[in-house]
Amino acid sequence: MSTKLIGTTAAVIDRSSSTTVTRFFNFDTLELESGEILSPVTVAYETYGSLNAKANNAILLCHALSGDAHAAGRDCTTGALGWWDSMVGPGKAFDTEKYYIICSNVLGGCKGTTGPSSINSATNTPYGLGFPVITIGDMVSAQAKLVDHLGIERLFAVAGGSMGGMQALEWLVSRPSRVRSAIAIATAARHSPQQIAFNEVGRQAIMADPNWKEGNYYGGTLPARGLAVARMVGHITYMSDSSMEEKFGRRLREDRRPFKFTADFEVEGYLHHRGNSFVERFDANSYLYITKAMDFYDVGRGRTLAAALSQVDARALIIAFKSDWLYPPYQSQEIVRACKLTGLDATYCEVDSTYGHDAFLLETDEETHLIRHFLENVSLVKPADNNVT
Amino acid sequence: MSTKLIGTTAAVIDRSSSTTVTRFFNFDTLELESGEILSPVTVAYETYGSLNAKANNAILLCHALSGDAHAAGRDCTTGALGWWDSMVGPGKAFDTEKYYIICSNVLGGCKGTTGPSSINSATNTPYGLGFPVITIGDMVSAQAKLVDHLGIERLFAVAGGSMGGMQALEWLVSRPSRVRSAIAIATAARHSPQQIAFNEVGRQAIMADPNWKEGNYYGGTLPARGLAVARMVGHITYMSDSSMEEKFGRRLREDRRPFKFTADFEVEGYLHHRGNSFVERFDANSYLYITKAMDFYDVGRGRTLAAALSQVDARALIIAFKSDWLYPPYQSQEIVRACKLTGLDATYCEVDSTYGHDAFLLETDEETHLIRHFLENVSLVKPADNNVT
Repeated sequence: MSTKLIGTTAAVIDRSSSTTVTRFFNFDTLELESGEILSPVTVAYETYGSLNAKANNAILLCHALSGDAHAAGRDCTTGALGWWDSMVGPGKAFDTEKYYIICSNVLGGCKGTTGPSSINSATNTPYGLGFPVITIGDMVSAQAKLVDHLGIERLFAVAGGSMGGMQALEWLVSRPSRVRSAIAIATAARHSPQQIAFNEVGRQAIMADPNWKEGNYYGGTLPARGLAVARMVGHITYMSDSSMEEKFGRRLREDRRPFKFTADFEVEGYLHHRGNSFVERFDANSYLYITKAMDFYDVGRGRTLAAALSQVDARALIIAFKSDWLYPPYQSQEIVRACKLTGLDATYCEVDSTYGHDAFLLETDEETHLIRHFLENVSLVKPADNNVT
Repeated sequence: MSTKLIGTTAAVIDRSSSTTVTRFFNFDTLELESGEILSPVTVAYETYGSLNAKANNAILLCHALSGDAHAAGRDCTTGALGWWDSMVGPGKAFDTEKYYIICSNVLGGCKGTTGPSSINSATNTPYGLGFPVITIGDMVSAQAKLVDHLGIERLFAVAGGSMGGMQALEWLVSRPSRVRSAIAIATAARHSPQQIAFNEVGRQAIMADPNWKEGNYYGGTLPARGLAVARMVGHITYMSDSSMEEKFGRRLREDRRPFKFTADFEVEGYLHHRGNSFVERFDANSYLYITKAMDFYDVGRGRTLAAALSQVDARALIIAFKSDWLYPPYQSQEIVRACKLTGLDATYCEVDSTYGHDAFLLETDEETHLIRHFLENVSLVKPADNNVT
């Protein structure tokens, strides 16, 4: 059977397989919410599609805790698919034939953007805990510099899930004139004590690792076991009770040794694997800084959510997942309620998924349907000066 | 105002304040489910009230993961109140004027009963990981030896919450002729992968602590940080999202230093406190052994739950709590369903509490009402030979 006979499938494969390259934007200084100045700053980013002549078709994607700038396509070096490849590309939810898609690694991260593992120019050594505490607002400030650099005055949309959703909300309230629409998925306007508590357990696991050495481990042994435990806690919260039941049940691993403390259940092996592989791709200090930024984040910053949104003139799409107990739907509903109070045009969708928080990366069919429709509607608003062409 | 004017209150205080003493029962050998023989064995236990002439008014209380034999009254040495003091005493749910209440520390524990921190008579050093892996069934076997020793052929009831509920179920299926009734609260017939996963994260945190030294830390530095992290994870799962919101919200601690990694939120301070104080009262290896026993436990052991219960002729009271997401009500409902399938007289109550899993220790008014009524009904069955006198 020739590939021509399965044209649709071939086309889908083709749409996923364009190679992409991470680029770097450098700038001198960034003033942080804390008042501190970070200098110099590098932002790693990727773009997909083309910016149109009016520069009004740009969509910024914001990644979650452990994501990076590589949202779509195959990395030109590693061949790895982007973290949201199923959603970004020709004909996909974020259609690169229509939109110019940007994704950058967050400030404080470890995938090319300045973070605690970067070299502090003042000391010529990695920042470690000398890195200033950063906020979701600071992440957005760094993104705004990049958006300026790319010659975009107003984003067609900002979109993200989990911590990415927080950044989308932050764009709305901190730069209302620069965003036409926001898509916030499986997120919260601020963390509950339970969310803070899970993050704090992860941080404590890292800081309890003697190899962490107050963050001063670069060039030496990494605090691998602590970071792995932190990631294991995370993975439990990303799944639902029922998705774990479906995926693992109480099945035992083949190499089990009964009545020993080795991992016996498949679910344990899965967590070990996820924990250990995370260590190879993520920096423990970045984990500390980024989770702290999430915990401190509060869209309202003392004001009510509605008050914070009062200056916003944008459309919002808020998506939650029924089985997401880490970012439960009630947190999304709070955002929608505040939007409605201020007269903001907000659409709320609660997807009936069993995947838990991970659903925002997995329920791509549902999301594609919702997001494509939402973006089409946004493009119909104020067609005179804003229509995507 | 004299205390006579507040007689009811004074009486309640009086009912809680009787001093109690932990006693120890020693026996030569215990054959474990694994086939190994543990020898010698000590079981720490306390009793409250008096065994009647027919020896048919005894109730065995089974404690949860971190509990001990001291269920009620004030410890004669430390003055500490028992872990279920609100439920055990004259006129309380487990009325010591009617019943003879027994509570023992579980096998594998660290509160007087033989466990990994006990001296191995073969080596004259603490067992550490040389302690055999034990099961919920083994815990019950040790309890059965104690019950024999106390001259009790048939228990009026076995009751417990969480892991204590597992023991109550295990009494039913392993020794059906020796139990007239069982009260299983906030428990499961077997752990879900999510429950296993949370326990495994705790174990990994302990084993990642370099002071753990493959369990061989006795007499040296304890794996305190690892055990503290394990306990912190536990405490998150014991509370509900809403009870954390109510107790902590996003309040910051007074001694916070903004933009630092010290604990800033009250919920973080609470977790640190709970984690650190746990280290002083609990043995890390016991944590490993006991959580493993919980994870491996399966009432059915390959059979269906209904098949496992088919030989049982006892009454059961199953209590779950709406906001308990660690042992969700559906797990209790499964037990009730199996009871009904085999014709067992089971009562199910789902208490509308916001306390999460902790509810089994906190919702004492509701529990008192349910348990008192249940025990009265049990005493009405077969009055000729079994009535409590």
